[in-house]
Amino acid sequence: MLLALAVALVAGIARAAAAGHGTGGSEEAVEMPETGRLLFALFLLFVSAKIAGELCLRIRQPAVVGEIIVGMGLGFYLRGHGAEWPFLETFAELCVVFLLFIVGLEIDPAGLLRVGVLAGSVAAAGMVLPFAFGFGLYYLLGLPNPDLAECLFVGAALTATSVGITARVMSDLGQLGTRVARVILGAAVGDDIGGMLVLAVVVAITAGAVSSSQLILLLGQAVGVLAAAYLVGRWVVKRARPRLYSFTIASNARVAFGMAIAVCFAFGALAERVELAAIIGAFFAGIIFAELPEAPELRRSMEPIYELLIPIFFVTMGAKVDVPLLLGWGVLKVGLILTVLAIIGKIVGCSLAAYRMGWREAFTVGVGMAPRGEIGIVVALIGLKAGAIGNEVYSQVLLMSVITSLFAPSLLRVMLTPRVEVEPAQSDPDKTPSPQ
Amino acid sequence: MLLALAVALVAGIARAAAAGHGTGGSEEAVEMPETGRLLFALFLLFVSAKIAGELCLRIRQPAVVGEIIVGMGLGFYLRGHGAEWPFLETFAELCVVFLLFIVGLEIDPAGLLRVGVLAGSVAAAGMVLPFAFGFGLYYLLGLPNPDLAECLFVGAALTATSVGITARVMSDLGQLGTRVARVILGAAVGDDIGGMLVLAVVVAITAGAVSSSQLILLLGQAVGVLAAAYLVGRWVVKRARPRLYSFTIASNARVAFGMAIAVCFAFGALAERVELAAIIGAFFAGIIFAELPEAPELRRSMEPIYELLIPIFFVTMGAKVDVPLLLGWGVLKVGLILTVLAIIGKIVGCSLAAYRMGWREAFTVGVGMAPRGEIGIVVALIGLKAGAIGNEVYSQVLLMSVITSLFAPSLLRVMLTPRVEVEPAQSDPDKTPSPQ
Repeated sequence: MLLALAVALVAGIARAAAAGHGTGGSEEAVEMPETGRLLFALFLLFVSAKIAGELCLRIRQPAVVGEIIVGMGLGFYLRGHGAEWPFLETFAELCVVFLLFIVGLEIDPAGLLRVGVLAGSVAAAGMVLPFAFGFGLYYLLGLPNPDLAECLFVGAALTATSVGITARVMSDLGQLGTRVARVILGAAVGDDIGGMLVLAVVVAITAGAVSSSQLILLLGQAVGVLAAAYLVGRWVVKRARPRLYSFTIASNARVAFGMAIAVCFAFGALAERVELAAIIGAFFAGIIFAELPEAPELRRSMEPIYELLIPIFFVTMGAKVDVPLLLGWGVLKVGLILTVLAIIGKIVGCSLAAYRMGWREAFTVGVGMAPRGEIGIVVALIGLKAGAIGNEVYSQVLLMSVITSLFAPSLLRVMLTPRVEVEPAQSDPDKTPSPQ
Repeated sequence: MLLALAVALVAGIARAAAAGHGTGGSEEAVEMPETGRLLFALFLLFVSAKIAGELCLRIRQPAVVGEIIVGMGLGFYLRGHGAEWPFLETFAELCVVFLLFIVGLEIDPAGLLRVGVLAGSVAAAGMVLPFAFGFGLYYLLGLPNPDLAECLFVGAALTATSVGITARVMSDLGQLGTRVARVILGAAVGDDIGGMLVLAVVVAITAGAVSSSQLILLLGQAVGVLAAAYLVGRWVVKRARPRLYSFTIASNARVAFGMAIAVCFAFGALAERVELAAIIGAFFAGIIFAELPEAPELRRSMEPIYELLIPIFFVTMGAKVDVPLLLGWGVLKVGLILTVLAIIGKIVGCSLAAYRMGWREAFTVGVGMAPRGEIGIVVALIGLKAGAIGNEVYSQVLLMSVITSLFAPSLLRVMLTPRVEVEPAQSDPDKTPSPQ
């Protein structure tokens, strides 16, 4: 309700601002230099994202949800104003490259290997079932002529898990050290990597496979290029690092930062060159740097960039949603069914894989894996850009991402709160910086 | 020579890359998605900027010089490639908004008042004479029909001093505490503010004054809006800060960062709205935050953003230079005369104002004020965008900025190195992060 109010408020301000532009005389509005309008749009995006984020923190929901909802409110204003919207769209694509680089940078491959078989099977089951559900739903809806590319993208969007949201909830409840948390976080990381691979495959397939032999070729190419780039990049970065440090005059921190940005751009460009999405490259570039001893310092350097760019990205993604279209019952209905399937798919898949932990813990693992957050949105963006999905499906996937991200933390809190009558450090407002 | 080699190298790589695109089959090159090409362009920009910056550090020259020269080498490649160049140009305009915000954030208004009358008169004399020289040169060249807007912009580009370059040299030589340093830095800050005011006035004048009464009106409007925005913004930020901190759940550092970015965007948009340049607004927004106790933390947060965006900006500015045009003797000749006038104007103007310090110190002050660096370039960019100057004059102003930035540090080193035979901490390569 608070959020709905915020959206209404923001939409109102935006419309007033639009009207203000208008009253200045139509010729003046046209003459207004693009830089000014762009900065005004960025101001609007950024401030509403920050306000929405704060409101979400207050009601203990992930900031990304508020940012997307605010974006939906601003979409009418932003898309209506010519020249800055295409720039913002391209700009958002650069922002998401940094987002995925940072997500990759948070991944600890060594830690991932340690959580072992259980987390691995949770991740796998939690990918297969939602993929099948998403694919199946759009396949059935599309009969007699289902659009396979669309089905694949929806399936891929459902495989992802947003580690950040669940990690945040557990950290709030002081439960990051428990077995459930370790399984969830391990599985979510596996999911991230798996999700990117699924996306790579889906992009490769929709890019032009016609026969099944071509399909296998494309699959091999996508995975092969990724693996080769990752291994070569990792080797080069590890070798080049000490030499660059001793060779350069600039401080080591600056050299490491410059190298990270350069590899991120290069991997993004390379991924696009071999017909994969740039974010896939950026994600694996992030993993390369996650293993280095410089990773903590790099993460700190990335924080201001994250704070600056990521809200702009999520608001822009929200602004892409055609709200009147989404609110039509036909479209909304499918979006809600997709959301229910996304939740059931993750909970059933992950719980079954984790059933040896006992039903309550297994169920908690399933709930913890349900929020899709940014990764679902990113997959939808790539699908929209590739022309594989239309605005209807894009809006449905965003709805699914928002609702799963809202639903999971609340349920998780209920599942994880100990039944003893002690308040677990829940009431003090945390004043520390944190992801999401 | 090292730099020329670097340029040749970069240009070679860029041309090879362009050819590489070509050999992939022309239809494939066209189909390559824009994101990939954009990321490749950014990769090229960023990596060559970092290499050029490192080379400049090695030969004890400011990084900005290397970045611009490398940009000139890349211009042929970057401008030749359709869709990403307009994006990069707009992106660079966002980058420079952050640059000027950060420049403003480094200014200490209280310290400025402390250095007093001497620094003030050095700043004033160092603005008037170069402005007159620049204006006069293009006025004479333009006879019998001089283009007043062009003359004004060249004059404005000559008023600026780049604090960063001189401060860096003095810090290298361990002379930041001397009287000469204090006068130079105080005067350079005065110059920055004065330069922005001159730019504001020039932009306002060229925006459409025809009669002298209109001119006074526009002047009043430009200065009035700036002063009002600064005072109101300062008051609001100072008041809003503690309330926001106690009201919000997000950490204080994040709130302060968000507020700084929001005010930067808002002031940029406002400045454009009243027909001033966005950077002028961003600069004054920076000064507002420079006074707050949060300033040191904000400067730290801005560092990664600076490292990421500013090299991209300077390379793009270099890429805008039409090198073959600049190398034509007619254009180059004027550029070199402009450069000589820029140097003489600052040295004579500042030395005269500081003559009571003794001729050697006064001359050193003049030399320290000579580098134009980023501010001259920014003024040229605004003039180019407003259509007041053409590519010829833009190239000449950039040449002037580059040469003054190269010349001043070298001469300054000679002037400041003590004649006693002690090596003042000069030989150890500094490994600390530093501005410029």
